[in-house]
Amino acid sequence: MDVLVPFAAERPKTRLGAVLDAAERRAFAGAMLGDVLRAIRAAGHASEVLATAPVDLSAVADPPAVDDVPVTVDDVPVTVDDVPVTVDERPLSPAVNDALAARRPDADDPLAVVMADLALATPGAIDRLAAAGGDVAIAPGRGGGTNALVVRHPEFRVDYHGASFRDHRAAAARVGADVDVVDSFRLSTDVDEPADLAEVLLHGEGAAADWLRDAGVSLAATSGRVEARRE
Amino acid sequence: MDVLVPFAAERPKTRLGAVLDAAERRAFAGAMLGDVLRAIRAAGHASEVLATAPVDLSAVADPPAVDDVPVTVDDVPVTVDDVPVTVDERPLSPAVNDALAARRPDADDPLAVVMADLALATPGAIDRLAAAGGDVAIAPGRGGGTNALVVRHPEFRVDYHGASFRDHRAAAARVGADVDVVDSFRLSTDVDEPADLAEVLLHGEGAAADWLRDAGVSLAATSGRVEARRE
Repeated sequence: MDVLVPFAAERPKTRLGAVLDAAERRAFAGAMLGDVLRAIRAAGHASEVLATAPVDLSAVADPPAVDDVPVTVDDVPVTVDDVPVTVDERPLSPAVNDALAARRPDADDPLAVVMADLALATPGAIDRLAAAGGDVAIAPGRGGGTNALVVRHPEFRVDYHGASFRDHRAAAARVGADVDVVDSFRLSTDVDEPADLAEVLLHGEGAAADWLRDAGVSLAATSGRVEARRE
Repeated sequence: MDVLVPFAAERPKTRLGAVLDAAERRAFAGAMLGDVLRAIRAAGHASEVLATAPVDLSAVADPPAVDDVPVTVDDVPVTVDDVPVTVDERPLSPAVNDALAARRPDADDPLAVVMADLALATPGAIDRLAAAGGDVAIAPGRGGGTNALVVRHPEFRVDYHGASFRDHRAAAARVGADVDVVDSFRLSTDVDEPADLAEVLLHGEGAAADWLRDAGVSLAATSGRVEARRE
């Protein structure tokens, strides 16, 4: 399965501005991208980054310490600095839709779209995404988003604006594509807001969790859910 | 598999106070309890409610409209008004631990603990919980909680206070129990805060989602994640 990984390279993760400055947000977004690419490769799939600006994967996509590489295959660390990067400055939906129109994916040649901020993605979670049925398989994000898709229908198109999970179900119905929903906590967790950092610290197994710890972000117990705070 | 469903019967869901008044919170909590019990029964498991006060399941656990019952087996609606209710006024952890001590669950006779506010629980999600391996299988909640457990080890005990997911991993290690983590968005979604209501409206298939819609709670698009609002 080929996997497209859209990545906002220029001003990523603005909603994390209360915790991380602009340079830190770029570094953290790069660490998450690396984790996602490693999970996809370790699961045996080919990925391509669809970025809004050039990305140097040798700089952003490797974990901070080599002996801490979390993803290995046959005990060999998975590296991703050779993943192809396509630059498309347009907004997310037209860029993805051009790729869908060019590829015309079907059951024999599906195309997946996996967001670059799924810091909890593991090879196992990617396996479950790939194994889902349906002409369109959707892993919803919290708050109505679409975090990962597998498209096996040549006419399906995306619209990530607003409550895209519902919109993508409707878009699939319009072209006669049936939908499978992937029930994954890991894939539902896109990292946009400070509260999401707690999930990375709790469940992350890769470079993004390491990066947060190195930056002094830690878990803080509260009366309700655990939160992330920075010293 | 036997399933214990703890339920705070007296003052449930206080963190929803900005949207629902006390009587509404009780009714909504009852609707969620009914959905959870129906999902467990439809998946073929026996449940028992562990409540802090008496609960009339004939009043709370059936959907508002019979022709809208979402869970059926062989086209017969699943009813749950005969599920046994045990009243234990103590806090959650000692009440559950007494049940674990009395049952001494093992691989042949596991005991599951599933929270009553998992409004997105489906028979399929309960199936995946039951199929998970490990002496202890944990479905984490958002923010570090423990939303569902399957215990197959006689010495494991719970402590739901604070970041219980981590604590339960440690508690399992202390008694030599290995842990499997269940990767489920549905089981990760406990409904505690107003933002969680959006998930019920987006993905709920049962009485809780119906109840919210009848109460005038609907989805509101924002710049980030979709939110729930009340007219």
